[in-house]
Order: sequence, then structure tokens, then C-alpha cells
Amino acid sequence: MSALDAAPDRSNRLLRALMRMPVDVTPVWLMRQAGRYLPEYRALRAQAGSFLTMCQTPELACEVTLQPVRRFALDAAILFSDILTIPDAMGLGLSFLEGEGPRFERPIRNAHDVASLPVPDPLKGLRYVPDTVRLVRRELAGLCPLIGFAGSPWTLATYMVEGQGSSDFRRIKGMLFDDPMTLSALLSVLVRAITDYLNAQIEAGAQAVMIFDTWGGSLAAHHFLRYSRDPMAAIVAGLKRSQDGTPVPVIVFTKGGGSWLGALAETGCDALGVDWTVSLASARATLGGRVALQGNLDPLALYASPDRLRAETEAVLRDFGGGTGHVFNLGHGVLPDVDPARVGLCIDTVHAFQRPA
Amino acid sequence: MSALDAAPDRSNRLLRALMRMPVDVTPVWLMRQAGRYLPEYRALRAQAGSFLTMCQTPELACEVTLQPVRRFALDAAILFSDILTIPDAMGLGLSFLEGEGPRFERPIRNAHDVASLPVPDPLKGLRYVPDTVRLVRRELAGLCPLIGFAGSPWTLATYMVEGQGSSDFRRIKGMLFDDPMTLSALLSVLVRAITDYLNAQIEAGAQAVMIFDTWGGSLAAHHFLRYSRDPMAAIVAGLKRSQDGTPVPVIVFTKGGGSWLGALAETGCDALGVDWTVSLASARATLGGRVALQGNLDPLALYASPDRLRAETEAVLRDFGGGTGHVFNLGHGVLPDVDPARVGLCIDTVHAFQRPA
Repeated sequence: MSALDAAPDRSNRLLRALMRMPVDVTPVWLMRQAGRYLPEYRALRAQAGSFLTMCQTPELACEVTLQPVRRFALDAAILFSDILTIPDAMGLGLSFLEGEGPRFERPIRNAHDVASLPVPDPLKGLRYVPDTVRLVRRELAGLCPLIGFAGSPWTLATYMVEGQGSSDFRRIKGMLFDDPMTLSALLSVLVRAITDYLNAQIEAGAQAVMIFDTWGGSLAAHHFLRYSRDPMAAIVAGLKRSQDGTPVPVIVFTKGGGSWLGALAETGCDALGVDWTVSLASARATLGGRVALQGNLDPLALYASPDRLRAETEAVLRDFGGGTGHVFNLGHGVLPDVDPARVGLCIDTVHAFQRPA
Repeated sequence: MSALDAAPDRSNRLLRALMRMPVDVTPVWLMRQAGRYLPEYRALRAQAGSFLTMCQTPELACEVTLQPVRRFALDAAILFSDILTIPDAMGLGLSFLEGEGPRFERPIRNAHDVASLPVPDPLKGLRYVPDTVRLVRRELAGLCPLIGFAGSPWTLATYMVEGQGSSDFRRIKGMLFDDPMTLSALLSVLVRAITDYLNAQIEAGAQAVMIFDTWGGSLAAHHFLRYSRDPMAAIVAGLKRSQDGTPVPVIVFTKGGGSWLGALAETGCDALGVDWTVSLASARATLGGRVALQGNLDPLALYASPDRLRAETEAVLRDFGGGTGHVFNLGHGVLPDVDPARVGLCIDTVHAFQRPA
């Protein structure tokens, strides 16, 4: 008997909802639930010195992962890490400049750069990640499941080619238009690296995995299918979909992908993350129950008054309506200066909601 | 007989396509076709001193409007102006800081600020706009039609409340959540002001008008309907839809609105602008020919090699397919450092394309 077959509670309601099984209350977790808005995070960060040190030190990453789960009635922990650990392990030289976001010392610019890219062994250069997963699972002791994650190939390629965040994606789109073979080669390496990385997380104990396609929404529809959706589908096809007899659900989230939900379901994932511009009712109508949905409160609603936050949270739940297959989340990450009390209110509102049959 | 009933040529093919009438070749114009990428624009700008001076001096605005139409075989001129002329005429004190974008000296923060907002008479404080329209029409002498435009109520409200561009729309969303009456009052004033402003442009000779909803895509679906779509519908309902017996088509463009096309068609507009993330074929399937479509080449394609730019341009045309109701455009504005030769190549490719029956 798998853990999913037990009566729904905090230990399994996320996984049951992702597999579209009935739950007692809608499960909830929040993107960036471990982060700067928590005073205990800021205290640890001040000690650790840098964000990367926190990601790369299993004891620290484990502690940060657990912080929000201790404070709130969250139905999942999500690994504290960064989507850029893979390019860092490929030797691109990642750094985070305060207030400026990530930057690579050695960005990818041409076929030669791609040809020399290694596929990192997740048990060697990225070993701190499965080590963190194992530590978190031990500490959680079954309280709630742990979600592992990675960035999508297109999203990682964007950072690797631009060298940093970008407003118009000029370099990566230049490669797409005028050197598509090199882009395809880069995406192939990333598919292999991300598949290995997520499988290592699953083998270490991650009970669900999520692929963050932060920049897929920058693409024209036909390019999205080829350069973001298809590589994600290749990853999904290569993942270990169960561990010790229990399914390991896969969540795919393309920010700004609201008009491509049907195409995204074809990746073979179990659930789609959706941002707050999507009506969950319309998404269900489009998808006809093929996948579960995860989302989608506007992160800015966490700045509203308590009454209004409660109403906005309930509006998301009502928009989804009855039946199975909803995981409550924000449509994007928790912002750094949100009041933790508002986060708690949002979570408690989800659990108190009387779901329609 | 209206100008639309004549055989299609440069003088009427845009208007015919917007009204879903047959055309000889697909009409094309480009958002921000008059702008910094043109050396003749930069020369005039250097003389004029400021961007606002160019907008507010009919002779200069007329000259800038005409520049791209002289250089390229464009099927429309679009009024050279800015969406923020209305809040400027309301007394908010608009300025443009080099490299920083627009800023208001006196932003709107509460019910009191909204209560004292005047609805500007477009024939007084904004008189330079209809004056420019008349001048352009005279200079064009029927060569191609002139498109007028305005920002959407939500988009103008965003700038007016934030006081400048914003990455997370914190102030305007704060108003939406916790002072929705004030937001509704602000949007009502803007609906009246924009309706008057567009009607003044139509009366002065604008042959089509477009509503730019640049920031509607920042909203949750249910808020979008109420705070952006509905106010746009109110404007459309109040517009003069014909002039001297010829229809004046209305185009509505919500950037990032690809998953709301059905709801946008309900504004009563004649055509929808769509950004490059939308598949035109899917959009047609969704809309069933209720409105024409305008778009949607990724503006970054203008940096690609000539061969690739040609292929991407043709991909947009093929995605739309046969039949009536397509106006070629970018999915957003021309970027400031594009090579004008690429713009010309794109336009010529559209006109040379053999449209399926």
C-alpha cells in the first residue's frame, strides 16, 4: 500500500491532489515560501553570509526548507535551492550580486561553448542537493511531503546565454533565430542534466518534482512548443515516476503560459502550475481533467487587508470549484517584504474553506 | 459609396482588413513605427529638444507621423503621441526622464485626488492632438489611413497611481484590493476622458482607433474583466463608429491577454491586437471570425538575419492562414536600435506573400 492510499492528511494531501485523488481540504504550499519575508530566514542568511552558501550547505538549506513548515500549516516543503545550480556545476561561474540578481562569469555564446559543456553528475558536483533532500526527509519525518525542483531547459539556457537576467532576451533569441542548431544542442545537454538532477532528487527522497519554466512565456507560440515545451516533455519522459511503490507526481509551470495549457499538458506531467492571469475554471474547461492544477493567487494579494486577502483566497478556491485536482499556491513567488502573518492567514483560509462536492 | 468599397489598395486595405473585407495583400503597420530607430526621427528629436515637445507641437508630431510612411510601403500611419497625454492634461505633471520612462509629479493616491480630477476637453488642453490629426490627414492626402489611439483606463490608472512605471503594480493593486470604490471612480473618469479624446480624434479625421491596454495582463482574470475589459467596453460603446458614411474600426490590444481573447471580443471592438505569444490559428479557432486580428511578430525577430526575418514574417502570415481579417503587425513596438532596413524587409515580405485563398 502506498502512502497515497492512507486517509488524506498533512502527510499526503498534496500528493493525492496532484494525482487527482480526493482530499479532505485543499492542500497548499507557496512558491518561495522559504525566503526573505521570514525573520528566521534573514537571521540565518546573515550568519551564512551568502545565498549560494545557504544553497550549497545541506544543513543550512535543510534548516531554511523547514522554517516555513514549522511556522505554518503548509502541506509541503519545497527544497531550498536555486534553478541555477546546474549551470553553476557546468562551470559557468555563478554569483549573486545584491539587488542585481544572478550573473555568470562565463556565459554561453556559441557552438564551441556548448560543445565543451559537461553534464554534471548530480552525485558529484551537485551532491549537496541530494544530501539536502535526504536531510530534509529525515527531519520532516513524514509530517508533509518534500517537493524537489529544477529550472526548465529554456529558462536555464536563457540565463546561460544572456549571462544574467534580461528584459528582452536579445542574445538567446538571437541564437534561436540565427544559430538554432547551437540552441538545440544546448537544450539537449540541459535535458540530460536536468533529468539526471531531478532523478537524483527523487532517489534521495523528493516526493514530487516541479519544473519552473520562468521564461517560456517570452516566446512566440511555435517557438515555445519547440524550444521550451518539447524539452520539458523529454525530461518528463525520463523521470522516475515512482519511488518505493508510491507515485512521484511531476508539476510543470510556465509563467505566462496561460494560452498554452493544452500544449503543456502534452508534456505528460501530472499537474500544471498556472499564474494568476489564468481562470482556473477556464483552465479546467480547456483541459477536461487531464492534469491537476496548481495556483494561482496574485502574490500582490498578500499585501491586502486581512478581509480582502481572505476574499481573494476564497475567490481562487471558488474559481476552481468542486472535484479533485487542485493544489492552492500563488501564481508566482512570495515577495520579500510580505508580512508573515498574511501568509499564515492565506494558508489557514485555504484549509478552512468548505469545498463544493 | 464609402472609401472601403473601392478596390483594395494602400489607401483602404487596412480599413478593409479590420472590417474583415477581402484585400489584395495583407496590410501592415508596426507599433512604434515612428520612433528612435529612424535617423530622421533622431534628427528631429535633437532639434525639438524633448519628446513631449514633439508630441505637443502639431507640425512636429505630424512630421514624425509621416516619416515611416514616406520611407516604407506601410498601409497606415499612426498618430505620433503618447498614452499619457490625458493624465498630463488632467494636471498630474508628466515628465520623461532620459532612460527612466514617464513620471508624474502629482500621482493619484486616494479618493480626494480622484474627486478633483477634471475630464479634459480634447478641444482645449489636448487640442494639439486633433490639430495633429487634421494636419496629418491633409499631408497624407489619402495615401493611407491614419490610426488614432489612447491608453486603456486600467493602463492610464496604473501610471497615475504608481506615479511611474512599475514592476509589480503594488500601489494600484493596493487600491484595487483595499479601496476599490476609488479605483472604480478613477476608471469612470478615465472612461469619459478617453471616449471624448478618441471621438475628437475621429472627428478630426482618424480613420481607425486603437486602445492600448499595456498593463491589463498584470491582472488576475476576474479583476481583468472588471477593471480593464469592462471599462474598455464602455469606451467602445461610446465611440463614433463611422465618419462621413465610412466605418471607423476599433482595435483593442491587451498585451499578455492571450488567454482572454473571447472576453476581449465582447468589448464590441472590430479587431483584437495580439502579442507574439498567441498562435493566430488558435485565436481564430477561439474567436470564430467575430473580430479581425492584428499582429504578431516577435519584435526581436527584427534583429535576426534577413533570411530568418523573412521566414519568421511568413510564419506569422501562414499561422493566420487564408480568409479575411488579418492586419500584420509586431506583437509589441519596434525597439529603438533596430536597423531600418530590417523593418523595410519585413514590410515588403508581408506584401509579397502569396496568401492562401
